[in-house]
Amino acid sequence: MQLTETRLTESHRPTLDQAIEAIRTRAYWSPHPEHPKAYGESAPTEGLAAFEALHGTRFDLDQPGTDGWTGAETSPYGPELRIEYPHPDVDVLLPAMRAAMPAWRAAGPELRALVCVEILSRISARTHEFAHAVMHTSGQAFMMAFQAGGPHAQDRGLEAVAYAYTEQTRTPTDADWSKPQGKRPPLDLRKSFTPAGRGISLLIGCNTFPTWNGYPGLFASLATGNPVLVKPHPRAVLPLALTVRVAREVLTEAGFDPNLVCLAAERPGEGIAKTLAVRPEIKVIDYTGSTAFGDWLEFNARQAQVYTEKAGVNTVVVDSTDDYRGMLSNLAFSLSLYSGQMCTTPQNLLIPRDGIETDDGPKSYDTVVTDLAASVSGLLGDDARANAVLGALVNPGVKERLEGASELGEVALATREITHPDFPDAVVRTPVIVKLDGTKPDAEAAYLAECFGPVSFAVAVDSTADALELLRRTIRDKGAMTVGAYTTSEETERAIEEICLDESAQLSLNLTGGVYVNQTAAFSDFHGSGGNPAANAALCDGAFVANRFRVVEVRRQA
Amino acid sequence: MQLTETRLTESHRPTLDQAIEAIRTRAYWSPHPEHPKAYGESAPTEGLAAFEALHGTRFDLDQPGTDGWTGAETSPYGPELRIEYPHPDVDVLLPAMRAAMPAWRAAGPELRALVCVEILSRISARTHEFAHAVMHTSGQAFMMAFQAGGPHAQDRGLEAVAYAYTEQTRTPTDADWSKPQGKRPPLDLRKSFTPAGRGISLLIGCNTFPTWNGYPGLFASLATGNPVLVKPHPRAVLPLALTVRVAREVLTEAGFDPNLVCLAAERPGEGIAKTLAVRPEIKVIDYTGSTAFGDWLEFNARQAQVYTEKAGVNTVVVDSTDDYRGMLSNLAFSLSLYSGQMCTTPQNLLIPRDGIETDDGPKSYDTVVTDLAASVSGLLGDDARANAVLGALVNPGVKERLEGASELGEVALATREITHPDFPDAVVRTPVIVKLDGTKPDAEAAYLAECFGPVSFAVAVDSTADALELLRRTIRDKGAMTVGAYTTSEETERAIEEICLDESAQLSLNLTGGVYVNQTAAFSDFHGSGGNPAANAALCDGAFVANRFRVVEVRRQA
Repeated sequence: MQLTETRLTESHRPTLDQAIEAIRTRAYWSPHPEHPKAYGESAPTEGLAAFEALHGTRFDLDQPGTDGWTGAETSPYGPELRIEYPHPDVDVLLPAMRAAMPAWRAAGPELRALVCVEILSRISARTHEFAHAVMHTSGQAFMMAFQAGGPHAQDRGLEAVAYAYTEQTRTPTDADWSKPQGKRPPLDLRKSFTPAGRGISLLIGCNTFPTWNGYPGLFASLATGNPVLVKPHPRAVLPLALTVRVAREVLTEAGFDPNLVCLAAERPGEGIAKTLAVRPEIKVIDYTGSTAFGDWLEFNARQAQVYTEKAGVNTVVVDSTDDYRGMLSNLAFSLSLYSGQMCTTPQNLLIPRDGIETDDGPKSYDTVVTDLAASVSGLLGDDARANAVLGALVNPGVKERLEGASELGEVALATREITHPDFPDAVVRTPVIVKLDGTKPDAEAAYLAECFGPVSFAVAVDSTADALELLRRTIRDKGAMTVGAYTTSEETERAIEEICLDESAQLSLNLTGGVYVNQTAAFSDFHGSGGNPAANAALCDGAFVANRFRVVEVRRQA
Repeated sequence: MQLTETRLTESHRPTLDQAIEAIRTRAYWSPHPEHPKAYGESAPTEGLAAFEALHGTRFDLDQPGTDGWTGAETSPYGPELRIEYPHPDVDVLLPAMRAAMPAWRAAGPELRALVCVEILSRISARTHEFAHAVMHTSGQAFMMAFQAGGPHAQDRGLEAVAYAYTEQTRTPTDADWSKPQGKRPPLDLRKSFTPAGRGISLLIGCNTFPTWNGYPGLFASLATGNPVLVKPHPRAVLPLALTVRVAREVLTEAGFDPNLVCLAAERPGEGIAKTLAVRPEIKVIDYTGSTAFGDWLEFNARQAQVYTEKAGVNTVVVDSTDDYRGMLSNLAFSLSLYSGQMCTTPQNLLIPRDGIETDDGPKSYDTVVTDLAASVSGLLGDDARANAVLGALVNPGVKERLEGASELGEVALATREITHPDFPDAVVRTPVIVKLDGTKPDAEAAYLAECFGPVSFAVAVDSTADALELLRRTIRDKGAMTVGAYTTSEETERAIEEICLDESAQLSLNLTGGVYVNQTAAFSDFHGSGGNPAANAALCDGAFVANRFRVVEVRRQA
């Protein structure tokens, strides 16, 4: 059945309008259900079967310029996926993608947006299948892979579409301009304005959140008229390959060239991202990953708009609280979720060495750390629950850092090995908490470097004032995706806010319930600020979409 | 009298609203009158007297960290201005500017916008004074200096303020977020969102349009919460020094730190822009000038958002016309205005060597060029009119290029010296038109380089198809601020449009009346596209303002 503009409008225009409105109010909204049961009774079985059916197959996308097959994904839970993906001859693929642009541009912002929403809606219908794909590439536990890799990622994609649509329609398609000339006839011009994509957009995916971190850039670029070449992380190809397949199906059905969305899988050690990033055809790049390669892209891919999310050092200031238990359990969950393998996980907990005031009386530094360790142990005491919260370590580098953490300082909480009942080869570990003296230079070398994974530092500081100074320095020099703080003092609260405003960091204050500093909600929360070294863009705002296209004006004598 | 928020709102909120509406409709609008008589009977005399009173004075701005005085402006019309400006010790000045940020941030987008509109309105009231300052630094003829340096520049400034205000208010200041949790109580958060400037913004001014090219960046940055350090071109300090003085007065009266807007005049040969551009405090840079230094800034000022307008090679395709006389007179004026010293002046006229069809019958290549030369000669035949159109050559480099042009090819129109009755030392020259064979490599070397000033090339091409191919290559490789075309063929028109959409260039079609390809109107036309090598930003759009600030979110347990 042909996807006509009428049908797409009927199906998706209300969703687009609701997304635009949610962004405006920042109230809670999502069209993508979080609960696995919402997808129908047969969805779990069918999703798993669809995922398993892919094992040992060639994932053909019918792309031009395929010169071979590659793929060696191994699930962090153990199994090899044995899926091969097309490897591109970019000298064939890129021109084919470029050739798809004019018709996509001519479609205009609304039809492009509606096609994007259709892609997201088909992905949504297959959320169970995607959840297994995300789980077995990122190591996230199933429920997290389902939610973060499914509805939350789809929300972020839809958010980008809504921003892109709004941005492109701020200028009218046509205008009559008539300038009075006193007694002489006015000067009359007829003007047209067309949002035109910049060129091919390159998405460089990450290992931990292939869809969540990939969809904003993918859909922002596609909705603004750019073909998108998806270069997944070699350990997390499947979730994005599935995405590319769905996108190509929808584009074809809607009468567009499927080469508007293509996959570039790479051979082991090929480093295709470096080659692609400096190709003259590539005009936009979205990247999530290490600071080193993010900096390389920003420096070298001068022909492109480069949007990077890199590493940061996230801080929580612990000054005082009126809900000590709530604070501990909230922090314990934040440190444990997905084994701390989130760019938003707190790393440094800054605690005054003379202790803090709480609703449960004063607590010494040692007590706070001990109580937090106990809270983490309690949360993860039951293996089934631990497996559900922690997931698996995504790669051997994380395990190495975890094992090396005990050499950095006094271990307040040691890591524990957890066995996964279904996946005996999965590497599941509880987080460590290491005590550090904030004033010692060797400690500083440890806590001022990003230690990605389930390692947190309980940093003893001389005072809250010193904590704030360290917070400012950490954001400015190392960057931060998140900042958390606990305080009952209005003055301290205001001082922390000012630091976050000065240094451009997103702040969560006194979270003690079921919202965690490492989670953000599309349509309401910004992910990163784009104003400190951790990322040069926020998800999602006007700046994230506004430079992916240019408005070309044609004016004529009227 | 104190500038209260109430008073500013009463005075300027309607103007701001009208500007926002004009941007949305792109219909003609301006609050700044173009006619000198609109400013009152005494304004011309008072404006001239105010300008002359500045000669031979120290232009004190009461800035912190002034370590000397500098200035050696000589009017392109001859007279030395003998005005000295404060030279900054940037180690003192920059921290003082930075210290002004928090209160300016706390003012919020609306009050910031209203203060900016007040600055513009005071500048508007002194338009006659500014006109003389622009005339005697840029070499523009008085009427052009008045209009382009006055109301048109003020329009572009106001346009930037309107964009900045709109962009900052897309996200609400506060939001209540409540996420349903089935039978459990919802998750409730209270969120606040604050647009926060990035840091000090550096404006690097140009010689030819100090206010017109300076105001968009200056007001975009100021309105988004950034202090602005104005580094004028050493030959065109006065118009921006006057601007800084007015801004400081208004800021003080409104209760803000005047150091939010400061001047950085430089000593001869100091190259202070290079030093300032890489200072860590500088987070935004606006630049108009040579490609070489623009590229240097983009490459080296990695800590800043860099907005550049550089050089390009502007093309007019001459395919056919149904108004031959109108085309010739329109082109003649475009080539002559301000002696071709506009970044938007056409340089290459691509004309099929077999001639073109017109309403006056077929015209050979030679005839078109001869007729165009005659049209320019007619326009500039009267010396008074020539002086009013041409202005003076802004610097010796332009004169050298003009004199060297005759060696590049056959001269179809030679330059003529004009005497200025009031300024005998002014260098006033009519433009030259040089014939070039588009297929010859040595000719290509000439016409594919920017030849800034009153030099145009009548490039003979084999066909319109070849013209279009050359147009595409010129935009892609050299950049273009403007593209013009004359054609009666719908097919050719559509082909030219597609090229401009593909390569991101602003197109004017079949202009034969009183609108010229080199002029753009704020609130309606985009100046440049930001998508080809001539400039990385357009004046003005969302992308020009969206990354000058970041939105910082603070969320609290509700």
